[in-house]
Amino acid sequence: MGNGIKLDVSGEEVVAQLLHLATFSDDPNPAVTRIVFTKNDLLARGYVKELMAAAGLKIREDPMGNIFGRWEGSNVSTGAVVTGSHADAIPLAGAYDGTLGVIGPIAAVAALRRAGFRPRAPIDVLMFTSEEPTRFGLGCIGSRGMAGELTAALLDEKLDVNGTSFQAASTAAGYGGASHQEILEGTRIKEGAVAAFVELHIEQGPLLEKEGTQLGIVTAIAAPAALRVFFSGDGGHAGALLMPYRNDAGLAAAEVALAVEAAVLKTGAIDAVGTTGLFEIGPNTVNSVPREAKLEIDIRDINKDRRDAIVASVLKTVEEVAKRRKVRHRVEIINQDAPAICSDKVIAAATEAAEALGGSHKRMVSRAYHDSLFMARFAPTGMIFIPCRGGWSHRPDEFASPADIERGVKALALTLAKLAGSAGDETGAHTEL
Amino acid sequence: MGNGIKLDVSGEEVVAQLLHLATFSDDPNPAVTRIVFTKNDLLARGYVKELMAAAGLKIREDPMGNIFGRWEGSNVSTGAVVTGSHADAIPLAGAYDGTLGVIGPIAAVAALRRAGFRPRAPIDVLMFTSEEPTRFGLGCIGSRGMAGELTAALLDEKLDVNGTSFQAASTAAGYGGASHQEILEGTRIKEGAVAAFVELHIEQGPLLEKEGTQLGIVTAIAAPAALRVFFSGDGGHAGALLMPYRNDAGLAAAEVALAVEAAVLKTGAIDAVGTTGLFEIGPNTVNSVPREAKLEIDIRDINKDRRDAIVASVLKTVEEVAKRRKVRHRVEIINQDAPAICSDKVIAAATEAAEALGGSHKRMVSRAYHDSLFMARFAPTGMIFIPCRGGWSHRPDEFASPADIERGVKALALTLAKLAGSAGDETGAHTEL
Ligand SMILES: [Mn+2]
Ligand SMILES: [Mn+2]
Ligand SMILES: [Mn+2]
Ligand SMILES: [Mn+2]
Repeated sequence: MGNGIKLDVSGEEVVAQLLHLATFSDDPNPAVTRIVFTKNDLLARGYVKELMAAAGLKIREDPMGNIFGRWEGSNVSTGAVVTGSHADAIPLAGAYDGTLGVIGPIAAVAALRRAGFRPRAPIDVLMFTSEEPTRFGLGCIGSRGMAGELTAALLDEKLDVNGTSFQAASTAAGYGGASHQEILEGTRIKEGAVAAFVELHIEQGPLLEKEGTQLGIVTAIAAPAALRVFFSGDGGHAGALLMPYRNDAGLAAAEVALAVEAAVLKTGAIDAVGTTGLFEIGPNTVNSVPREAKLEIDIRDINKDRRDAIVASVLKTVEEVAKRRKVRHRVEIINQDAPAICSDKVIAAATEAAEALGGSHKRMVSRAYHDSLFMARFAPTGMIFIPCRGGWSHRPDEFASPADIERGVKALALTLAKLAGSAGDETGAHTEL
Repeated sequence: MGNGIKLDVSGEEVVAQLLHLATFSDDPNPAVTRIVFTKNDLLARGYVKELMAAAGLKIREDPMGNIFGRWEGSNVSTGAVVTGSHADAIPLAGAYDGTLGVIGPIAAVAALRRAGFRPRAPIDVLMFTSEEPTRFGLGCIGSRGMAGELTAALLDEKLDVNGTSFQAASTAAGYGGASHQEILEGTRIKEGAVAAFVELHIEQGPLLEKEGTQLGIVTAIAAPAALRVFFSGDGGHAGALLMPYRNDAGLAAAEVALAVEAAVLKTGAIDAVGTTGLFEIGPNTVNSVPREAKLEIDIRDINKDRRDAIVASVLKTVEEVAKRRKVRHRVEIINQDAPAICSDKVIAAATEAAEALGGSHKRMVSRAYHDSLFMARFAPTGMIFIPCRGGWSHRPDEFASPADIERGVKALALTLAKLAGSAGDETGAHTEL
């Protein structure tokens, strides 16, 4: 096995821990609903910290609630090799999204320790705060904070449905700080403090399972632009209002939904996707001309310029349709983050790990959104995917097999070992990062 | 004034009665919600019968709950001149739709009686059961029954949201009969029993108000075809599912909504209208490819063949889109009733009445659906429209002015007098009907 490290990992044990973590849920299992800073999120944090402590990791929490469990390295002056993911879950999700990348690493470092490995660079297991946008309408809050992409104003402006700000909710959960500035500074990662980041995750897509490939090594992370489009017209009775006098908000919306598809297909790029996932009209009765329409549109690509060109094309269509159909319109850009390209060094380390394990692997693109997207802003970053049943995610029947989980944890362990280097070995891969 | 009849009608008094009727509502006024055979519908029926009795009308109720108030004529062997409308109201509707055509006629016959007029043919004031489709998903149930267009099976098959059949609900309200056959036979109008039908109604469109015209004389009643279209695909993650593998039910629906409009516009006919009033997709979240879509489509015209050609064109598009997009589809025809052409005799009588009143009037098409549509199947039929504010209807701020109501009631009275003829006058217009 790679680096001569003999790993002893139990997939069944990791699954047992994932299923225990799943019990901290607002909905009955197998569904998992765990919203950041709610009681169940705090219980889950407690359980994760217990596991970290049992694995001999030294725990630190930052002012935004990101939790770090450190395995000290022999060289105290080098940046850390970090691995982690999230444990919050959207309503009626499953037990594996995010959580595998929190629990799995704890098992990975424990296995490395049992195998006699001692890292040169410190290894941090990390649990991020609020990767899911459920509560505050913004995803990856913890990693955005670590990347220095949040502002003091945002801490107060991001409100949940009850009008509670991120600032208030995190303070109530026992995090926070003396000032907004202190919170932001205390969360932001200092230059050089992270030497590399790697995230273990279920694929959330069908490719690995379909092809029978055991591991995916991620080369790029697509990032969504999300738009909200509103149209309003004057409505009217479906019988009485003649066609020339109509300004039908529903038809304007239908045109835009089709234009999203057309703009994506026009690129000819397989990596570009566009979806009108939300389509609502009002009053929404058979005998009324639609007066209002609301769309939510998701556009992703691994190429930022190409994605932004699709967004621009859709916005142009919105204007054109609104003018032609004489409907009022409003557009909100929910987010428009940059995609990330993974680090060659992390890809090489993960590839070496996968080859040492002797199974099949392939390079692939992450089409879902992860904290890795923001970690890549300041650190060499990569991801390791394992297959999940049907490509399903964000649903109660989300599932990854114990064997696949075991292989993923082993691949992560060997990747971490490669990136951190062995204690005392000053010629390790880390110097090239 | 026409026929030398001096009419004394108080618009204010009619409005006061309409507003009292509005108090029988499941929602607080000005909203009116009155679903057939609920407590408030039964209270409204009681009030209407009180007013009929006070006007000296002889009350008869048929097995489906249609209420007749008769003013006997001098000739007992001739068919009746009938006028009426409905008092049920969709959720959060207003105080004038339908009710004006129930309360107004009582005021009209009272005014004729006070003026010394005595009819040759009997005059019936009629309140129909369930013009609105709210409870049983089918509109104009009472008038369909009178036209003999219902079946015994339908009485049991038409269920409300609680699974109560029309049969059960009408029986619980004190109507019904010994057998389904007896109910249908007891409701169906015998040949020759109705010599003419005329309905007084607010326009439910903006034309009269916009043009400052005081009365509308209806020449044709458009009838809707209503379709329900379902598409289903496989859904998927908006990031992970690549475009070539999608079968997006929402985009199929968007194409059909636009095709409805295109098919209508292609006819070039101002009287043709088509509306996709209901558009729903599932799961309806920004990061999910739509798995399901449901449309409700309303297509109307005064020309049945042209309307049916539009329906056929839409159905063809549904098939074509489903095939091309590889989505499953299902279509339900909710209804596809024939439009009605109004009787020349009723139009002539109403026109004479309007001219006698000295105000402005115009011929127009009723683009909304009324019990008149079904009365026209077996009797010479017409409608008189008065302006309503903004063309609004089916909303709490529905409004018609006391002056317009007064004029409408007077026009109705003179039309009824003309159609019924004067007592003893065997050369009256009635013989030409
Ligand atoms: Mn997720
Ligand atoms: Mn995740
Ligand atoms: Mn109505
Ligand atoms: Mn009506």
